[in-house]
Amino acid sequence: MLSDFGLSDSYAASMKGVILSISPESRIVDISHLIEKYDIIAGAFTLASVVDYFPKGTVHMAVVDPGVGTRRRGIAISSPKCYFVGPDNGLLIPAALRMGILEVRSISEEKIGVGKVSGTFHGRDIFAPVAAHLAREGKFRDIGPRIEDFIRLQLPKPIITQHTIMGQIIHQDSFGNLITNIETEALRKINTGSQIAIEFNDRKMMIKIRPSYGHGEPGELLAAVGGTGFLEISVNQGDASKHTGAGKGTEIRVSAI
Amino acid sequence: MLSDFGLSDSYAASMKGVILSISPESRIVDISHLIEKYDIIAGAFTLASVVDYFPKGTVHMAVVDPGVGTRRRGIAISSPKCYFVGPDNGLLIPAALRMGILEVRSISEEKIGVGKVSGTFHGRDIFAPVAAHLAREGKFRDIGPRIEDFIRLQLPKPIITQHTIMGQIIHQDSFGNLITNIETEALRKINTGSQIAIEFNDRKMMIKIRPSYGHGEPGELLAAVGGTGFLEISVNQGDASKHTGAGKGTEIRVSAI
Amino acid sequence: MLSDFGLSDSYAASMKGVILSISPESRIVDISHLIEKYDIIAGAFTLASVVDYFPKGTVHMAVVDPGVGTRRRGIAISSPKCYFVGPDNGLLIPAALRMGILEVRSISEEKIGVGKVSGTFHGRDIFAPVAAHLAREGKFRDIGPRIEDFIRLQLPKPIITQHTIMGQIIHQDSFGNLITNIETEALRKINTGSQIAIEFNDRKMMIKIRPSYGHGEPGELLAAVGGTGFLEISVNQGDASKHTGAGKGTEIRVSAI
Repeated sequence: MLSDFGLSDSYAASMKGVILSISPESRIVDISHLIEKYDIIAGAFTLASVVDYFPKGTVHMAVVDPGVGTRRRGIAISSPKCYFVGPDNGLLIPAALRMGILEVRSISEEKIGVGKVSGTFHGRDIFAPVAAHLAREGKFRDIGPRIEDFIRLQLPKPIITQHTIMGQIIHQDSFGNLITNIETEALRKINTGSQIAIEFNDRKMMIKIRPSYGHGEPGELLAAVGGTGFLEISVNQGDASKHTGAGKGTEIRVSAI
Repeated sequence: MLSDFGLSDSYAASMKGVILSISPESRIVDISHLIEKYDIIAGAFTLASVVDYFPKGTVHMAVVDPGVGTRRRGIAISSPKCYFVGPDNGLLIPAALRMGILEVRSISEEKIGVGKVSGTFHGRDIFAPVAAHLAREGKFRDIGPRIEDFIRLQLPKPIITQHTIMGQIIHQDSFGNLITNIETEALRKINTGSQIAIEFNDRKMMIKIRPSYGHGEPGELLAAVGGTGFLEISVNQGDASKHTGAGKGTEIRVSAI
Repeated sequence: MLSDFGLSDSYAASMKGVILSISPESRIVDISHLIEKYDIIAGAFTLASVVDYFPKGTVHMAVVDPGVGTRRRGIAISSPKCYFVGPDNGLLIPAALRMGILEVRSISEEKIGVGKVSGTFHGRDIFAPVAAHLAREGKFRDIGPRIEDFIRLQLPKPIITQHTIMGQIIHQDSFGNLITNIETEALRKINTGSQIAIEFNDRKMMIKIRPSYGHGEPGELLAAVGGTGFLEISVNQGDASKHTGAGKGTEIRVSAI
């Protein structure tokens, strides 16, 4: 379960109550409910960064849904390893592409037999019943008609030239690590050694690529290939965001030296 | 489980450990541990807003307990669908009334066989063992003597006249939605159309009743019947609290136009 | 599960996904993910304060790990009642000593058959698979070689003289209660009555020892033996930290009157 519902309200709990009412044996894991409000791209990135690690048969329900109650559809996606349930606004797509999309279906409220539907809380009234239906091995095709015209969303991709990668900071974690959208292989393509030049906000710095945060000197700005598979700019036992002034959305240029 | 314990301390975890020690098969769901410290009414409102969605047999344990360790009793309440366990300070009552109260019992520490009881942490030392006793289908009557003189608590009710409802903001959620204590039917009684006048803090505004947040223009102040069944003042993809300056406790007058 | 990972990122969720992939029947309880970043002592204190309350067979996985990816080892500890898994930096030791240490083993990545190991996220790539191995009753000796030279960590101990205890504030909870490192018995040793003198930051105050917070007058500064077994300085329905200006690390002298 992933959402922008926060932790102080009872919204996530209502969804869990609905799921356990329908599928009492389900184990529910929170990915995060602290996605920035209405930030579909942040939600999509976070979901895509965890799907590899969940067991076969997992139903991923995600709700970052500024268009709730309008004509935007609810969808469910099947992949070889897992299911996805949420709004048709692109939120599920990067994670689903990572797992491989078999089918996308538009949720028919009549078909799936959800109860009274509020205008404002589809997470509880539509997505939770559909997720519970799948969790208890209900048929995927019972959810609604197959569709092809779902909304695509692509996370921003870096531009790779011979010696340079133009990427951006896609996430800043609570440690202050700056996670870029630059994958490891991209670094190989530009033939970096153990040191790279990074430029952002008109500053240019030489930094070392370290196997992990702890390999640098305390306080050293360094690059590491983080747990997400992406290049991270980090400070050993410190906060790279504060150290550099960069944050989510900052463009970053990486060059071989 | 609902409390004002916050998320940084290990208090909620201790209670879960106690429950799982007694009732290993229990599934524990957090409603919220971020109820404002000592705010019994906020806890009562939040609990009442989720009980409809949990399965038959659920044991709701709630701890917002400024009087812990004094002579205030611990109680358990049975209803046709679920149980409630917590302090006798009114916290459980609005939710229990919603579900229907069958019996209220005062917790006898000797009867239920709880261990050593600390003066400061009844959530862990008394309520958790009682909740676990009920979760594993222990007898309700074993908890202690039946009582009638438990503390009643009523959430503030709106005053409805021919054309006007005087209510208040009872909760402000993390999106900035202002949830009032005015139920949908109340609006019907004053014959509102698709537009209402709302007044608070000496300001008067005409706003539209929308089926959901997403139906307004982005940034539009609107009224919606939220997922809780109560009238909410919202801003489409925005923060109604910041937009209006109103917050929890603000009185609001709703009139037909 | 305890960590300093925070609640906004998906790091804790990835670890849960790994655990459930290996051990689908595990019940996972969060102790806290809001341990102050890199604060091994705070993590050790929090872990030690909950272990008594968890069932036999629990696997406690804790990750506060400034040295991740360096040569510091991962360890697992067996005790008569439970297991511990985490970095060899002292984090696990106070809790493990409380439960009784039977054996400490250094995690051999080859032996336990963990997958690809990232440099930055041993919580997910090493500790979670080891914890899951133990949760599904895998053999403890399969984890790696027995070691004796693990890093010891002792929580700061108070100095007890005939009439005085010199301790410190070891934790400030979200209510503002100041939890000291002074255990109840220590008070008995210096023969306190129902009142004690406390001194910190060059202030001296006489305060009453109350059975619980709620026994004082509202707003009264008082001492209570809290749910953790340690002396706490509290304000009935208030915030002792704000009231006194003391906080984590403040030295405190307690004297009989």
